[in-house]
Amino acid sequence: MSFDRLIKKIIEMKNPSVAGLDPRLEYVPEYITKASFEKYGVTLKAAAEAILTFNKALIDELYDVVPAIKPQAAYYEMYGWEGIRVLTETISYAKSKGMYVMTDGKRNDIGATMEAYAAAHLGTVAVGDQTFEPFGADALTVNGYLGTDGIAPLLKICTERDKGIFVLAKTSNPSSGELQDKCIDDTPVYAAMGDMCEKWGENTIGEYSYSAVGAVVGATYPEQLSELRKRLPHTMFLVPGYGAQGGGAEGLRGAFDENGLGAIVNSSRAIMCAYKKEGCNGADFAKAARREAVRMREDIVKVTGLSK
Amino acid sequence: MSFDRLIKKIIEMKNPSVAGLDPRLEYVPEYITKASFEKYGVTLKAAAEAILTFNKALIDELYDVVPAIKPQAAYYEMYGWEGIRVLTETISYAKSKGMYVMTDGKRNDIGATMEAYAAAHLGTVAVGDQTFEPFGADALTVNGYLGTDGIAPLLKICTERDKGIFVLAKTSNPSSGELQDKCIDDTPVYAAMGDMCEKWGENTIGEYSYSAVGAVVGATYPEQLSELRKRLPHTMFLVPGYGAQGGGAEGLRGAFDENGLGAIVNSSRAIMCAYKKEGCNGADFAKAARREAVRMREDIVKVTGLSK
Repeated sequence: MSFDRLIKKIIEMKNPSVAGLDPRLEYVPEYITKASFEKYGVTLKAAAEAILTFNKALIDELYDVVPAIKPQAAYYEMYGWEGIRVLTETISYAKSKGMYVMTDGKRNDIGATMEAYAAAHLGTVAVGDQTFEPFGADALTVNGYLGTDGIAPLLKICTERDKGIFVLAKTSNPSSGELQDKCIDDTPVYAAMGDMCEKWGENTIGEYSYSAVGAVVGATYPEQLSELRKRLPHTMFLVPGYGAQGGGAEGLRGAFDENGLGAIVNSSRAIMCAYKKEGCNGADFAKAARREAVRMREDIVKVTGLSK
Repeated sequence: MSFDRLIKKIIEMKNPSVAGLDPRLEYVPEYITKASFEKYGVTLKAAAEAILTFNKALIDELYDVVPAIKPQAAYYEMYGWEGIRVLTETISYAKSKGMYVMTDGKRNDIGATMEAYAAAHLGTVAVGDQTFEPFGADALTVNGYLGTDGIAPLLKICTERDKGIFVLAKTSNPSSGELQDKCIDDTPVYAAMGDMCEKWGENTIGEYSYSAVGAVVGATYPEQLSELRKRLPHTMFLVPGYGAQGGGAEGLRGAFDENGLGAIVNSSRAIMCAYKKEGCNGADFAKAARREAVRMREDIVKVTGLSK
């Protein structure tokens, strides 16, 4: 009911990073897409199946190096319900390999509607006398703009089913400050949101002192990372913006506690498209992804100290 | 590229309301669910198909009374990808009957990821030499916590494809004030978000003076409705919280301009479950929904004056 399961994997693999699976079709090597078009025609189903083949090959090369994947829901929704079917299969495949799965959906709503999202992504749904797990992720990113009514329905499922959530606090994008940096009684909105995370998580603190309610804090804002790490001792951070978005490993130092814990850093495109950067053959994409994941692990733990 | 298409329908039907299609399986009359279980087994597919049957029958009775439907994505995601397939079919069916469709997804992300959501819900997606419209809604609810980076990708599609968005400003739930009522330089967050809506929409203003960027403002906060109506002359309001959530028609008055325009009021459960409230036979559910939709229209226009 905290992030202990994730943190144990991070320690075991000496790797506080997560591979973002945000598979735009143009990231998929052409030979895979072509084969899928031949089998299913030039359709959304073909696009989705090509992505699934791509994802599975990546997972096969990553599961013993990286503790978690973070599929970004938007890139699956983009291919309609066939894309969502493939999201489901990607989650299930990653879990079969022992990976921790965080669905990046930034979902938000209130009351019974938020319960529906919680059941969909982290919980179970009853149909007649049967019970189903529609998506079966371990964690979900959420947006806290609606306040406690939007978070409480998730806490129940986090507690009952040992799941976690990451609430947007300070996002990695250039315009994040338009609202998030504005001050409420001298407290920036991102810090106020962080304070709410501490409060929402207070009854779910695990053995590493982190609760089941984490926060999203961008690697592109190192000062806020350090400030929030000190301010929010029980809030695990999901840190986007490393690599492709411009944040480097040095800037990550402040996200981690003295044990090298308390944060997990995402990289999506740099891992998925490593084969393009290496200029190697498309057929070598999964091995190239593994090489980049290993490079990233070393880059991060050199700075944060988990390798000790 | 504004909300003109929607506003024209509202005027034509003398009805500034939208039917929320948030179909929990328990809202569906038993004879429909039972038939679906017999055909598809007790499965997520059976649940989804029962919901589709329910939705289509509701649309058949509502399309000449109510200008729009608002399917809530959470209640489809809840049934996994089969649920999302049925969301797609519901949207398509409502559009074939001439209804305006607003998907209530409260989506939010940045840059290329928000582009993916925009393409999924309001735009088109290219696969090989083909182009698909994955969901094909007319409008989408979104969450503006991430600032302009999260909204700009939508504006392009709104302009090019005559679509609209509704950004969460003041939500209808009891705890919405935890963040939204807090003040930034004497301006509450909900008003600051409203000001951003005015700015985001400034190049998309249509013939009724409303832009393509609307705001969600709850019926449960009549004072803020009136305040925001005056403050945001070009921002169309989507107003949840009428009926089941406790907001009455009298409190809606301030949401509308002097022409009875500028807002569209949602009712979900009261319409979908009208047959339960009436105590009538389940088989009469769609006619009961129509009766409630007509009652609601009269209740609202009596107060807001569009019937003149």
